Amino acid sequence: MPSTASSFKSRAEHRAWLAGQAALPAGFRTGTARFEFTPREAPLPAKMALTVIALDKPTADFAAVFTKNAFPGAPVIIGRRRLEEPALGAIVINNKISNVCAPGGVEVAERICGEAARLVGFGPKEIWPSSTGVIGWGLPEGAMVAALPSAVAALRGDSILPAAEGIVTTDLYPKIRRAQVGEGSIVAIAKGAGMIEPNLATMLVFILTDLAVPRAKLREILREAVEGSFNSISIDSDMSTSDTVILASSGRVPCPDTAAFGRALGQVCSDLAEDIVRNGEGVRHVIRVRVTGAPDAALARGIGKSIVNAPLFKCAVAGNDPNVGRLVSAVGKYVGPSAPGADLSRLRIKMGGVEIFSGGVFQLNPEKEKALAAHLRSAELYQSAPPKDGVFSPPIDFPRHERCVEIEVELGAGSAGATILGGDLTHEYVSENADYRS
Amino acid sequence: MPSTASSFKSRAEHRAWLAGQAALPAGFRTGTARFEFTPREAPLPAKMALTVIALDKPTADFAAVFTKNAFPGAPVIIGRRRLEEPALGAIVINNKISNVCAPGGVEVAERICGEAARLVGFGPKEIWPSSTGVIGWGLPEGAMVAALPSAVAALRGDSILPAAEGIVTTDLYPKIRRAQVGEGSIVAIAKGAGMIEPNLATMLVFILTDLAVPRAKLREILREAVEGSFNSISIDSDMSTSDTVILASSGRVPCPDTAAFGRALGQVCSDLAEDIVRNGEGVRHVIRVRVTGAPDAALARGIGKSIVNAPLFKCAVAGNDPNVGRLVSAVGKYVGPSAPGADLSRLRIKMGGVEIFSGGVFQLNPEKEKALAAHLRSAELYQSAPPKDGVFSPPIDFPRHERCVEIEVELGAGSAGATILGGDLTHEYVSENADYRS
Repeated sequence: MPSTASSFKSRAEHRAWLAGQAALPAGFRTGTARFEFTPREAPLPAKMALTVIALDKPTADFAAVFTKNAFPGAPVIIGRRRLEEPALGAIVINNKISNVCAPGGVEVAERICGEAARLVGFGPKEIWPSSTGVIGWGLPEGAMVAALPSAVAALRGDSILPAAEGIVTTDLYPKIRRAQVGEGSIVAIAKGAGMIEPNLATMLVFILTDLAVPRAKLREILREAVEGSFNSISIDSDMSTSDTVILASSGRVPCPDTAAFGRALGQVCSDLAEDIVRNGEGVRHVIRVRVTGAPDAALARGIGKSIVNAPLFKCAVAGNDPNVGRLVSAVGKYVGPSAPGADLSRLRIKMGGVEIFSGGVFQLNPEKEKALAAHLRSAELYQSAPPKDGVFSPPIDFPRHERCVEIEVELGAGSAGATILGGDLTHEYVSENADYRS
Repeated sequence: MPSTASSFKSRAEHRAWLAGQAALPAGFRTGTARFEFTPREAPLPAKMALTVIALDKPTADFAAVFTKNAFPGAPVIIGRRRLEEPALGAIVINNKISNVCAPGGVEVAERICGEAARLVGFGPKEIWPSSTGVIGWGLPEGAMVAALPSAVAALRGDSILPAAEGIVTTDLYPKIRRAQVGEGSIVAIAKGAGMIEPNLATMLVFILTDLAVPRAKLREILREAVEGSFNSISIDSDMSTSDTVILASSGRVPCPDTAAFGRALGQVCSDLAEDIVRNGEGVRHVIRVRVTGAPDAALARGIGKSIVNAPLFKCAVAGNDPNVGRLVSAVGKYVGPSAPGADLSRLRIKMGGVEIFSGGVFQLNPEKEKALAAHLRSAELYQSAPPKDGVFSPPIDFPRHERCVEIEVELGAGSAGATILGGDLTHEYVSENADYRS
């Protein structure tokens, strides 16, 4: 469960909670500018938000983790090079176009960084680009360069909320999580919301801290935090070309305890990962699979991912239909080809605390069926209704609760485990992705 | 392309074509009985069809390939044992309940086989069970035993069409393919239509031939035919617990040429595999990916499967939206983690004959965008319309054409290749699987 959040009754209540999370750590400012432009590839008006996250002065203490997709976006290509640079001064983030395999994409991104560098007074290699949106289109360089002065002029050091709002695409609401360690803090924002199966996802995450942790240690801690959080979620199994997590420390506050910092970062990442799933495209139910008793973590992760990625089970969850046959089938379709020697003889599976499988057979009856259906309904984020215009869209712009469809898979064959989060497969997902060029 | 079929203007035209394919090979009869029953697990009336495929006398020449799911259904468990038996005499097939991990499921299936054996006059081990439908429920043994005499009394040797109709669940129409070799024939029927990513799929395929091919050779030929057909399709990446392909020879006609038999069987399997995709749950577009120039077949298959299983690309196809960024991303999400050393520098990708990617960058412009959208529309099987009651269902019960969304992936890095078929991801798929207990 998330460490800090709870249920919300209205968008206003959620916004107030977000505002309470949003205080920037010392040494950071953010600014956003919005503008219209016309993409070359599809000549229709489009809107872009350009967000700058700037340190007061460049820092040597930064870390990043990127997608493993073989066609990384230009920002990922540049970001990998920037990891070798001595310092990070600012990040320039745009939504709408992801700048992936666009002709000249790297050069355009570098020129925009150069312009931003001039405006904030840092070196061009101290500026990181970050982009999300349509894959294949080219960035509107002229319009972005023209908007940069407004974004820089908007830089303020009080709240990260405007930046959290600036980086989103199809997200229904901004996502902010924070943690306190001694006198310092960690504050992080994320952009979801589709093409989410990390290693990482079309997921941009920016984590800012004023706690002084040296570069090498910061990178080690980030890798660990990502594995148990952003690499343990899947909305639709699509690993994006742009997934990026960037962590920067302004070093303004001494870190009292590196282990405590690691735990706090892990919690922030887990909370934010769950936020990303909960606001995944079309997600009406968050599915949490806890696999225990596995001989190794890889098998536990594989089983968990297979369940949250099984389209038929995801559809059943969407319909509040406790079709647990599809759940067990999803376990079997992973184990059969990928771990054929695994011992499943002591396998027990529960959903919502109700045992549905043990001793090699299903344990079902009409009373359990009712209890399972009630559990599914209780985890629903909103009710789906057929729309008049044929396009399903979620009728909410805040998370009403943080409940999940809870699945426990106990293998009884070891001591390794994994917790994997995913979402259901809904009409809202299809509407979003069949009708919307994101 | 299928060897024999074409476009159809009406269900009647398609039925007439099916009837023309349906003549049973010598030595086989089929019969079907339908009845209502009440499942124990969900006490609501349900309908089942019980189909018997019987040889005139048991044959030693039979072959089968099964799912690799770690939770195979009772019929798969029994079928694997039956492969060691000296002879196959009949197959008893039911829809509605798949008899997977149901308590006592193997024993129930064996008792039904025993009853069928008594009625057709063969030994109980000469009868194969086969089931498809809900996973986890138990077979209604009493109702099935009561219906068996009717199915056996209905046995006729003229047409396989009643059997093709008896084995389906959510299929929109029956599927039959045939081939002639010398004086003999191969006739095959299939049941789709969801949970289709073979190794194999909730896919039951029964292939009957009067051509005499000895058991060992028959098994070798079937394995080869399945690899390039049923193991090269994916509707939703869900590998079922029940996938089964059974091939039986009555041996009534001398086989003039085993190689010709192998080619004919391969064509029958390919045609039927394409039929299964074309009638996959909610499929509005069949997607055919031809991967060429790969260093090995595994990479070619991996890329093809990654494309047809990428939810975001599938949604874009459903919407006739040429969002080819998602297509390239799907290639990258496979190659990055699974074949990180693969050379993609000469990669070229075309859709509908239009080059969209080469030289490491997208090759897009508004004219191409129009051509790609037109290609997508031309491959659409029917237009989707928002339904009044909120449940999307395909407005067709026959295949209007056999066109595909044609994708070519040329790696330029070797001589291996693969052709993979899949479908789009539609509201009809979600409606079928969120609202229907299949």
